[in-house]
Amino acid sequence: MTYCVGVLLDQGLVLASDTRTNAGVDNVASFRKMTIFNVPGKRNIVLLSAGNLAITQTAVAVIDEWRHGKNAKLNIDKAPSMFRVAGIIGKALREVYHQDADFLKKHNAEFNATFLLGGQIKGERPRLFQIYGAGNFIEAQAETPFLQIGEIKYGKPVFDRLLTMAMPMDEASKLILISFDSTMRSNISVGLPIDLLIMRKDNFKKPEIRRIGEKDPYFADLRARWGSALRKTFESLPPLPLEG
Amino acid sequence: MTYCVGVLLDQGLVLASDTRTNAGVDNVASFRKMTIFNVPGKRNIVLLSAGNLAITQTAVAVIDEWRHGKNAKLNIDKAPSMFRVAGIIGKALREVYHQDADFLKKHNAEFNATFLLGGQIKGERPRLFQIYGAGNFIEAQAETPFLQIGEIKYGKPVFDRLLTMAMPMDEASKLILISFDSTMRSNISVGLPIDLLIMRKDNFKKPEIRRIGEKDPYFADLRARWGSALRKTFESLPPLPLEG
Repeated sequence: MTYCVGVLLDQGLVLASDTRTNAGVDNVASFRKMTIFNVPGKRNIVLLSAGNLAITQTAVAVIDEWRHGKNAKLNIDKAPSMFRVAGIIGKALREVYHQDADFLKKHNAEFNATFLLGGQIKGERPRLFQIYGAGNFIEAQAETPFLQIGEIKYGKPVFDRLLTMAMPMDEASKLILISFDSTMRSNISVGLPIDLLIMRKDNFKKPEIRRIGEKDPYFADLRARWGSALRKTFESLPPLPLEG
Repeated sequence: MTYCVGVLLDQGLVLASDTRTNAGVDNVASFRKMTIFNVPGKRNIVLLSAGNLAITQTAVAVIDEWRHGKNAKLNIDKAPSMFRVAGIIGKALREVYHQDADFLKKHNAEFNATFLLGGQIKGERPRLFQIYGAGNFIEAQAETPFLQIGEIKYGKPVFDRLLTMAMPMDEASKLILISFDSTMRSNISVGLPIDLLIMRKDNFKKPEIRRIGEKDPYFADLRARWGSALRKTFESLPPLPLEG
């Protein structure tokens, strides 16, 4: 399983993914699920993937080939908008579908792949999309300024309760890490380390992926304090009055 | 969708279910998903259901018919243990499967039904089971003293973090209601009112179902205070230190 999340803020984008992949619980490995495409001074694009790793890796390879090919319409480095970039990612997924789906079917494997796409092209604001296996996509908006893929449910309530676009990036990063904590407690197939990416608005330097592992002092402290604060909050609220 | 949960405590059982059913979002109704079978002074048995309402209602009808039939082995009022009761519930599901599954298949409908079974038979401790559509079942144990069916994920982290068997019933009821709050915020197909049942250990009077609706003053206060306490807790923790 996988858990990836992206949040769209006034200050820019924060994106995070876990690094655990598994083919059954007896075959677990660590893979980076985040790929950055940067054109210095001009655009920053990042892809986060969930689903069948063979499909998503192949799609990323196709996207990369197209960046160095002759067809400008398939080149995310030249696309005039993030909307067009999302269309190209969808096309790459359809290309992989065309190559592999029939063979997957013969092996009773589903064509299971989803991307989160975040980024900014100079002249546009930062934008965040989710691209489905079918190649179609949706865009995050102010009312619900986050998108999740993979094991989304355990970590969703904190976003529903607390996230707004006005939240600063450092606070949103804290919220994302709390969401990962809840997810990892309930689903062992989502695992550390976490890759976290801060993409500041109107900054077109290639962003650094920050890797947060078990020994990360901030994350360890946050988990402990959030857990104990939840417990104290719970204890401070009155119990249900029972009859008898 | 549905959300039902049962928790197994030293003091007894607390069980709760929502009341929303839907066949598509354009056909929503309110149904009781909790059925009590009581033999005064001797046994208390409660069933909570999730899945296809036609299947679960028919299974409950079969169980009830068997209570008034001649075969003692199919009578939950006479079963010598909760383990045997769980077996009878499973048999009733298999009976419905035998009647309906082929027809459901012709209409591309899955045979989708799950029960939570809680109860105590005099001489035994209170016990809690989950019965699958296939008629097999599992029992809750001290390490994980809760079971959930239906839309389980949004409301699971609070149990993973806080529940123990030693928790008093009134505190566990509070925890269940918080779990419902998180679930209802994230999934509109789980809805109020909530039916909550307290089954005290070694008390074989028929328990009352407590119905908790939007205007329930305790629940309204709990939701507001939990939400604002979470926000305050979140704000009190340090943000992720960012570079640059």
